[in-house]
Amino acid sequence: MAEENKVILHGLGVSPYSKRVELALKVKGIPYEFVEEDLENKSELLLKYNPVHKKIPVLVHNGKPVVESSVILEYIDETWQNGPRFLPHDPYKRAQVRFWASFFQQQVFEAMNTATRTVGETQEKAMKEFYEKLKIFEEGMKSLFPNGTPFDGKNVGLLDIFLCSCFGPYKAQEEALGIKVIDPEKNPLIFSWLNALLEVPAIKELLPPHEKLVELLLFFKNLALKSSAV
Amino acid sequence: MAEENKVILHGLGVSPYSKRVELALKVKGIPYEFVEEDLENKSELLLKYNPVHKKIPVLVHNGKPVVESSVILEYIDETWQNGPRFLPHDPYKRAQVRFWASFFQQQVFEAMNTATRTVGETQEKAMKEFYEKLKIFEEGMKSLFPNGTPFDGKNVGLLDIFLCSCFGPYKAQEEALGIKVIDPEKNPLIFSWLNALLEVPAIKELLPPHEKLVELLLFFKNLALKSSAV
Repeated sequence: MAEENKVILHGLGVSPYSKRVELALKVKGIPYEFVEEDLENKSELLLKYNPVHKKIPVLVHNGKPVVESSVILEYIDETWQNGPRFLPHDPYKRAQVRFWASFFQQQVFEAMNTATRTVGETQEKAMKEFYEKLKIFEEGMKSLFPNGTPFDGKNVGLLDIFLCSCFGPYKAQEEALGIKVIDPEKNPLIFSWLNALLEVPAIKELLPPHEKLVELLLFFKNLALKSSAV
Repeated sequence: MAEENKVILHGLGVSPYSKRVELALKVKGIPYEFVEEDLENKSELLLKYNPVHKKIPVLVHNGKPVVESSVILEYIDETWQNGPRFLPHDPYKRAQVRFWASFFQQQVFEAMNTATRTVGETQEKAMKEFYEKLKIFEEGMKSLFPNGTPFDGKNVGLLDIFLCSCFGPYKAQEEALGIKVIDPEKNPLIFSWLNALLEVPAIKELLPPHEKLVELLLFFKNLALKSSAV
């Protein structure tokens, strides 16, 4: 029976997309096996399970693959319905959470992503955009949760998972980039929200190792420096 | 009571994003008021309801706005649960439908979108990519529905809505572009699936007027021709 319900995640320890799924499994208390993929030399299984995109993360449940982090998150929430849910019950609130999760992904996260892979003026532009988007996101959270922080101290939801997968290791991002990423003065709500989440044991233990992440981000930075010098 | 449940859609008759929502409302049999927006001169209400993106479509239900077509579709399905649902009941099948809807949107539809706004080599490249993606989508549909067509003749689902909103007017696209878009020889499954859907009265009556769409697509084509000549 245990074998039948086996959950395997093909991922990458430092990838925010992969981290998102790990957080979801951990928060729900679902035991899983983690297969660390080498993106330079992807496993046969990964290529078999995700022939269309050939990308991580892939969740394999009962031998059947589920692909794409946002699809996997909904699958986990709908399959393991006991305990806290990632989305609110009310359809209107669900729509609002989905809207802001999509905004976070497509705007905030993408701008940060660009900033970590560029230098000079392009990076400055990306960071400016990042701060603007983050401000809009903070204002959005204020109106969505008028009575306080988005995290109620107990139930970890979709927006919490998105925030942690991207900015859980913000100190490593700040060290590697030499730039303030989450500024308590500019974004007090996000700063305190994120730090409250980082106290949750299931989240804390999943943070990628600080030094390893700094090293990876410095690798991207050097790559960007080299290509800008060409 | 009727006033309380009022549904208003701010959209654009020729926009596939807007069409997607109209199709969803029509298929569910939900009465709605359609407000045609002028994108050169957006209404105060549109800017108020969607201050973040300032875009159509916006669904207003009971005075409260829901934004982004994919979020709106899930909202409609979860709010009006009587009758057929857009997603299957089983979580694994839901995940598969969500995966292919996302593939269709991000790959097939985007390649088509690029093709309608370019000319020459860029357009050729986009069309080549479009055919490749469409083939992958067709193969995906074959494995997802091994016993026949994705449309069962009765229940219009999420993938049906995505397909129709994009390629419902494929004859207008072919006329304006001078290119075969949905080729019955290359993509027999998609061709017969689409044509079966176009027989559904709720879908048929929502097709954008052929001449108006050809005119719009020719406008984009001329714009692309002009900018490529600069």
